[in-house]
Amino acid sequence: MNMSYHRGEIRVIGLGPGDHRFMTHDADLALADATDLIGYIPYVERIPPRAGLIRHATDNRVELDRARHALDLAHQGKVVAIVSGGDPGVFAMAAALFEAIDHGTPEDRLIPINIHPGISAMNAAAAKLGAPLGHDLPWDVIARRLKAAAEGDFVIALYNPASKARPQSIFDAFKLLRDIKAPSTPVAFARAVGRHDEKHTLTSLAEADPSIVDMATLVMIGSSETRFIDKPDGTRWLYTPRSYGARP
Amino acid sequence: MNMSYHRGEIRVIGLGPGDHRFMTHDADLALADATDLIGYIPYVERIPPRAGLIRHATDNRVELDRARHALDLAHQGKVVAIVSGGDPGVFAMAAALFEAIDHGTPEDRLIPINIHPGISAMNAAAAKLGAPLGHDLPWDVIARRLKAAAEGDFVIALYNPASKARPQSIFDAFKLLRDIKAPSTPVAFARAVGRHDEKHTLTSLAEADPSIVDMATLVMIGSSETRFIDKPDGTRWLYTPRSYGARP
Repeated sequence: MNMSYHRGEIRVIGLGPGDHRFMTHDADLALADATDLIGYIPYVERIPPRAGLIRHATDNRVELDRARHALDLAHQGKVVAIVSGGDPGVFAMAAALFEAIDHGTPEDRLIPINIHPGISAMNAAAAKLGAPLGHDLPWDVIARRLKAAAEGDFVIALYNPASKARPQSIFDAFKLLRDIKAPSTPVAFARAVGRHDEKHTLTSLAEADPSIVDMATLVMIGSSETRFIDKPDGTRWLYTPRSYGARP
Repeated sequence: MNMSYHRGEIRVIGLGPGDHRFMTHDADLALADATDLIGYIPYVERIPPRAGLIRHATDNRVELDRARHALDLAHQGKVVAIVSGGDPGVFAMAAALFEAIDHGTPEDRLIPINIHPGISAMNAAAAKLGAPLGHDLPWDVIARRLKAAAEGDFVIALYNPASKARPQSIFDAFKLLRDIKAPSTPVAFARAVGRHDEKHTLTSLAEADPSIVDMATLVMIGSSETRFIDKPDGTRWLYTPRSYGARP
């Protein structure tokens, strides 16, 4: 075991769409004291060079190799920034990193990992086009969509899942999902994300208790591929591998 | 007609999840010289008071009334910032604003509107949990999901729709969607969003030409409710009304 690995860490950073103005302050801060920069060339080139930052630009499209490289650098004590366009969690490097950890060594699970979200292409495009994405739905349309999303094996995110006006809907939604999806499907209740009272509950579709859900909770239900990674400190990561159907 | 309305404008701004560090530079800039601030109280309260900024905090949950208020202020020459948590295009104020314009006067369509995207709750929660959202898919899984998404009447966004390795997929995808969805369904090809060579093509499912799609293109296919708003300058907005089944 390498005694230095506690010093290293990995930050997976979303650069948003092309222009720097669409980056978050959080992403800028995460880049500010990184020692090593990893990513596909067009993304690495968006980051101005500076003393103390080693750029590992690569034309390697094999995300798992790039993730392994980041883990090796972190084990050497480096503060590694992996950069992606858009959001790093949407068809980008975050899932590849967790997949590498899932296939990796017990020591890999000791490395502090932080994911820094970015504006995804879907949200950026929608903003330029108008507002194609959002509307409120009556229950019959929600039920139709939940059924379709479950049958399509999508990862499902439920916004505004509970309100005084419709307290029963979240229970109906879980009943519907339990009729279609496996009991072991991972479920996350992420409450007040980005606020001081943030709280996450990780569970399974069989064991999830929808009564803890309120309007500040984002409910996420996994696909058949979504899985947990257990960490030595007793916490867990939730991720969906890049490679569909390729469980370790 | 009010001679001053060309001076006003509306900016719909995403504040992201709770903490300011998750806002974009773009959102900060859009707020910097606004004259009027409109939004649901908890979101307005996130913005520090300053001289020259009138705060119209409201506990009014009727988004269409709030949108109409913003339009009236813009007609008076105000630079109106409408703030939402998360992304303004996802279950938030952008769709309500365009719905108000769709129901509004011809003069409403002269007001400059800019949507400033924010980190949506889904991406923020995913970042905290690990990477539950993203994976690559073989064509049979893509086909299954496209069919489910079409049958669920979702708005569909296709990422990375064309590559040298799989040039046929985008044609197969449009063939599949045309078998299920109405020919008049709005389609947008948004290329290089946020870059200097950004380009949008707005069309219908019947008339869309997938051969113009490349890896820098985000493809968006509307739900049965998604519609265009024609502007006097010949351009169009694309939006999905907040109220499902309530076309003007």
